[in-house]
Amino acid sequence: MKSNFIVIEGLEGAGKTTAHNVVVDALRQHGVEEIVFTREPGGTPLAEKLRDLFKRGVDGEKPTVKAEVLMLYAARVQLVETVILPALARGAWVVGDRHDLSSQAYQGGGRGIDANLMTSLRDTVLGDFRPDLTLYLDLPPAIGLQRARARGELDRIEQEALPFFERTRARYLELAAADSRIKTIDASQTIEQVKASIEQTLKHWFDEQATREHS
Amino acid sequence: MKSNFIVIEGLEGAGKTTAHNVVVDALRQHGVEEIVFTREPGGTPLAEKLRDLFKRGVDGEKPTVKAEVLMLYAARVQLVETVILPALARGAWVVGDRHDLSSQAYQGGGRGIDANLMTSLRDTVLGDFRPDLTLYLDLPPAIGLQRARARGELDRIEQEALPFFERTRARYLELAAADSRIKTIDASQTIEQVKASIEQTLKHWFDEQATREHS
Repeated sequence: MKSNFIVIEGLEGAGKTTAHNVVVDALRQHGVEEIVFTREPGGTPLAEKLRDLFKRGVDGEKPTVKAEVLMLYAARVQLVETVILPALARGAWVVGDRHDLSSQAYQGGGRGIDANLMTSLRDTVLGDFRPDLTLYLDLPPAIGLQRARARGELDRIEQEALPFFERTRARYLELAAADSRIKTIDASQTIEQVKASIEQTLKHWFDEQATREHS
Repeated sequence: MKSNFIVIEGLEGAGKTTAHNVVVDALRQHGVEEIVFTREPGGTPLAEKLRDLFKRGVDGEKPTVKAEVLMLYAARVQLVETVILPALARGAWVVGDRHDLSSQAYQGGGRGIDANLMTSLRDTVLGDFRPDLTLYLDLPPAIGLQRARARGELDRIEQEALPFFERTRARYLELAAADSRIKTIDASQTIEQVKASIEQTLKHWFDEQATREHS
């Protein structure tokens, strides 16, 4: 089977780490030898530096919304061109903790940055490069935040008000509905149920891929 | 007269410092009180940091062409939104040492980065924001490089081969021909002749502005 780029997406507390482990197990079972892991924003020294810069700013100067989005895309294209594409080209699979969908959902949906700016930048920078499969872990933000708080994992973005996360979720759902390569997983279930849902989704997806390659 | 954004452009050795001084003298003579000076890429702490990052890279990692262009535009929009637009809004004039035309000429023309990427990014990021007047100092690259070498001002970009600068100049000329707000100055003349040309160009431009405002 050709190598693929699989991305895990969702709000904080949705269970991305659990999903990550399920995906890796499934890939191993399918005989995948090399798996490259990425996280965004970041993933290369330059991309991490950009991530740090737009989170912290310089000498008290914060990036404007547009500057932040451009830095985000600079980090993303650096990761895609120097890590993801070369990995796929040599036959490795790539498992990503977030990718472009996060920007569309958080920046575009949550923060309300002009949707045209967001999609225009995506198309200008990434062309038609998209993950082969995205697992979007969906749950009501109130539950996700509760879980994240329980783990003591609250950073700046998680302290934003609930409506921000409601808008982010709404954009995630909207984009997932429009793209068959994005599978929505009900992440409000118990951890065992979520695992089972992901396993089943992956099984269907692998079957589809195999059918496609042999037809 | 309303405040304006005046930019000085041209290859290294074209005489941008001389032009800068002529512009400042002319503005003072026209009673302009506050002048804000910018240089690109850079001009704010964050923008300078980005300039530094894409020139040097991080831990030996250099930005890809697209990442570099995105970082360039992040720096530019930061400068435009936090320095140039607020200055113009309070009635100050802004005199820029390079602006977007440099990116179109050096990256688009010299390095041959896809012209659609360059103009698409410009339009997405800056909309229709353009300098009110650009003085493009035109001269054959061989002369400019000779002058820059004589001053001991050769950095990485100046060591590129002559064809790079020929392509950069060709793009400058092409863009200048297409936009009446860009005035081409023959910078191969003696310094006194160049000064006189700029003074005359500014005089015409001020007259035009005054006519426009009173009509």
